[in-house]
Amino acid sequence: MNDVRALVFDIFGTVVDWRSSVIAEGERLNAEKGLAVDWGAFADQWRGTYAPSMARVRDGELPWTNLDALHRMALDDLLPAFGVTGLSEAEIDHLNRVWHRLKPWPDSVAGLTRLKTRFTIGTLSNGNVALLTNMAKAAGLPWDVILSAELVRAYKPDAACYRSAADFLGLEIDQVMLVAGHKSDLWAAQKVGLRTGFVSRPLEFGPTYAANAAGGPAFDYEATDFLDLASQLGA
Amino acid sequence: MNDVRALVFDIFGTVVDWRSSVIAEGERLNAEKGLAVDWGAFADQWRGTYAPSMARVRDGELPWTNLDALHRMALDDLLPAFGVTGLSEAEIDHLNRVWHRLKPWPDSVAGLTRLKTRFTIGTLSNGNVALLTNMAKAAGLPWDVILSAELVRAYKPDAACYRSAADFLGLEIDQVMLVAGHKSDLWAAQKVGLRTGFVSRPLEFGPTYAANAAGGPAFDYEATDFLDLASQLGA
Repeated sequence: MNDVRALVFDIFGTVVDWRSSVIAEGERLNAEKGLAVDWGAFADQWRGTYAPSMARVRDGELPWTNLDALHRMALDDLLPAFGVTGLSEAEIDHLNRVWHRLKPWPDSVAGLTRLKTRFTIGTLSNGNVALLTNMAKAAGLPWDVILSAELVRAYKPDAACYRSAADFLGLEIDQVMLVAGHKSDLWAAQKVGLRTGFVSRPLEFGPTYAANAAGGPAFDYEATDFLDLASQLGA
Repeated sequence: MNDVRALVFDIFGTVVDWRSSVIAEGERLNAEKGLAVDWGAFADQWRGTYAPSMARVRDGELPWTNLDALHRMALDDLLPAFGVTGLSEAEIDHLNRVWHRLKPWPDSVAGLTRLKTRFTIGTLSNGNVALLTNMAKAAGLPWDVILSAELVRAYKPDAACYRSAADFLGLEIDQVMLVAGHKSDLWAAQKVGLRTGFVSRPLEFGPTYAANAAGGPAFDYEATDFLDLASQLGA
């Protein structure tokens, strides 16, 4: 086995708290516009379109479509379904880009800053490059490199997406570790040969929802947050 | 005209001083191995293979080949031509990766740090992603995003490479400015619709060589270094 040289991170739910971020911006919109939208339900349904919309791209039903555009297709359905009408194009576009403004978990920036001293750190996300770049700038995420499904036009869990991280970094596949809060993402990466680091994010789907079932193949590392992961990795 | 939102930078010669960096590492190799190579001539000849080797890829004579591999093809010819024999594979590979360890011009890190407060800043280089990522980490270049010809498999001055910067960043083409020390690079970007910023790097090819001829279409900005560019852009 080679030494790990690079850590690549799943983003939505692993590095940033998408649910609370969408709720917070949505509640500000409620106040501004006199709306009474349940933004927890809105966030869950919006996020619920994520896997099926990418599956349509993977299956060839849609041509390559980046995540901003998939989010927008879903948003255009969700707004009238939640009784939101009369927003301008600029307001809808701004709301769609809430995914560029998601807030990190409390340990994310400090943990990444430590991990960066010892490893190359990058995104490996289904989010598009603009989304990931803008998010990093807004949230202070200190990436060395932005890697995305968009670069190879293959959404995770497509093996091509995982392999691309090693190829772009000029590393062997087992010199790269995927860090994620979702076991399914890690198992798909494991099959391709990446190392895996599981970080528990029990609040991703809100306070009453257990995100990951127990069991399944083990990971190289399991950590409670990024600071714990940094300590385990000697960073 | 839209406001500029992102600055993308040519790298070799514009951000880093490839010639002095190759000479410095080469002279250490002379000392270690008892060689008497003229590393100024070596660096110039190595860099001299850059444009023709990429032209072979652009013309379809070679399949897509990243810059590390093009550098290595050239190095395998140059070492025996300069009488260097007996290096191990690991030593040759290390020397080939001198391009990952190039040193920035004295103003580069401070200027980029200022520009980053106001703009998204990224590479837009014919260097491959691994090279650019490793260089940034070694030299402390604070990029928001690593963009490379490798991502679209189209070497500058191919229009597809320049356009990809706006596409990946989700911006209009005239919201992106290429910053470069080479007028030919800027003119090619200008034709595609990017804004252009020329930064004079008179020492790129050594103290006795004038890199850029006078004349030709004007640029949006002309600066003496990155600090001057930052001041002109209010950063």
